[in-house]
Amino acid sequence: MNISDQDQRATEVALFRYAAAVEYAGAHYNGWQTQSGDNVTCVQTEVEKALSRVANHPLAVVCAGRTDAGVSASHQVIHFDSPVQRAERAWVMGTNTYLPDDIAIRWVKPVRDDFHARFSAQERRYRYLIYSAPVKPALLGRGVTWTYKQLDITRMQAAAKHLIGEHDFTSYRAVACQAHSPVREVKSLEVFQAGNLIVIDIRANAFLHHMVRNVSGVLMKIGAGEAEPGWAKEVLEARDRRQGGVTAPPWGLYFVDVGYPQEFDIPETQPGPYFLG
Amino acid sequence: MNISDQDQRATEVALFRYAAAVEYAGAHYNGWQTQSGDNVTCVQTEVEKALSRVANHPLAVVCAGRTDAGVSASHQVIHFDSPVQRAERAWVMGTNTYLPDDIAIRWVKPVRDDFHARFSAQERRYRYLIYSAPVKPALLGRGVTWTYKQLDITRMQAAAKHLIGEHDFTSYRAVACQAHSPVREVKSLEVFQAGNLIVIDIRANAFLHHMVRNVSGVLMKIGAGEAEPGWAKEVLEARDRRQGGVTAPPWGLYFVDVGYPQEFDIPETQPGPYFLG
Repeated sequence: MNISDQDQRATEVALFRYAAAVEYAGAHYNGWQTQSGDNVTCVQTEVEKALSRVANHPLAVVCAGRTDAGVSASHQVIHFDSPVQRAERAWVMGTNTYLPDDIAIRWVKPVRDDFHARFSAQERRYRYLIYSAPVKPALLGRGVTWTYKQLDITRMQAAAKHLIGEHDFTSYRAVACQAHSPVREVKSLEVFQAGNLIVIDIRANAFLHHMVRNVSGVLMKIGAGEAEPGWAKEVLEARDRRQGGVTAPPWGLYFVDVGYPQEFDIPETQPGPYFLG
Repeated sequence: MNISDQDQRATEVALFRYAAAVEYAGAHYNGWQTQSGDNVTCVQTEVEKALSRVANHPLAVVCAGRTDAGVSASHQVIHFDSPVQRAERAWVMGTNTYLPDDIAIRWVKPVRDDFHARFSAQERRYRYLIYSAPVKPALLGRGVTWTYKQLDITRMQAAAKHLIGEHDFTSYRAVACQAHSPVREVKSLEVFQAGNLIVIDIRANAFLHHMVRNVSGVLMKIGAGEAEPGWAKEVLEARDRRQGGVTAPPWGLYFVDVGYPQEFDIPETQPGPYFLG
């Protein structure tokens, strides 16, 4: 079919850009986005299907950071374009009606055309939840990573200090990581405990593939007394993934926040489950 | 077959009595015990199957308090008899290997012959977890009862005071409740908040059927401003289930502790997920 420039211009419709926050329990999904065909379920597909029903046309979403299979989020930010205008309440309630129980839209907001969920983000924040107890966590299940080992958080805190700042994180990224540069700036890295739960809270400008899980694997080994706190620095300086520890399981990982320039006026999400801050 | 008294005595073997604590997420079970045949799964069946494999003979367990479909426990206490002697570690680790992910044995301990998980219990404690937020809790799912309403916990606390002490709880028990007496002693009833989570913590000598969920239903209605705190007392004094509120859903309910006389030396369970105390 041959469409002249003029015809094409005539079919263009004004699009409105929206931002939204998504909360999801990742245990039953093959990650935010899957490359392996359509016979596995990913979070993005569910969100797009539900939003498309509310918008009454097929739409695609872009996220702040893709999460791996099994990883959860309390505050993943997305953007999408739609010619329709709906009240925030209509977007949120309508979409949540169509989403499965373990995915929810927390807010939807019209934003400037130049807002981009991924490229506008200046900072991401993750939490890694470790349940340290002699027996498996029947109640928390795949919402935490379980270890029967006792972890000493003062050792983990000492190790964490070595990773704060701008570094080449080659040793902490997956071999398959496709980022151009292995340099990232870790803005804060805190470890604290609440009962049996040990929480690793990490903020960075951006993350490499598996970076939080590899950092968590190293900190868990140090916490268990199987390596000294200085080992976190040795691993960093080696710039060699093979010098790192095991990649910690995805179950305890939560994407909890994204930072954008104030000019975009992205709302702060109301606090979710309180162990996620 | 005719067995003489002497033969029967010869087949008797010494039995050891054990106590154990069980943690379970009730969302996928038809309660602790089911009366409706074998084609639905109940927690007791799973626990008996797993313990029987470790003991190498079929065994039956008795629990401190049967929980309804969908109700969870961080510390359900059971007892069982077995002719075999195993180290605590062998019982716990072996049984947990055979249990599904959402059920775990926390400890096993040899106890006196006259210990009875149900009849020796002097006190039970439950927690009811309410997640109060504008959108559904994708991350906490069926581990909490969600309300989009804002609840005022000072109103709930004022209402709770009316229910403390020994009362006829006819208005707060299920019509189908089979207990002989509707009198129970509520030893404490506290309401507190942590972020979006509102926790109702209740201790009593024993509970009537649906009693915690009916108390929670009344407190939620009062917290939402749909009834005055004094209504909890009016309902109590009416001694009529029809005067009560709705039975709150099972999802937020956790059996968290059982109190026994010190002479039985029942171990205190190490703290579980910290919102369960």
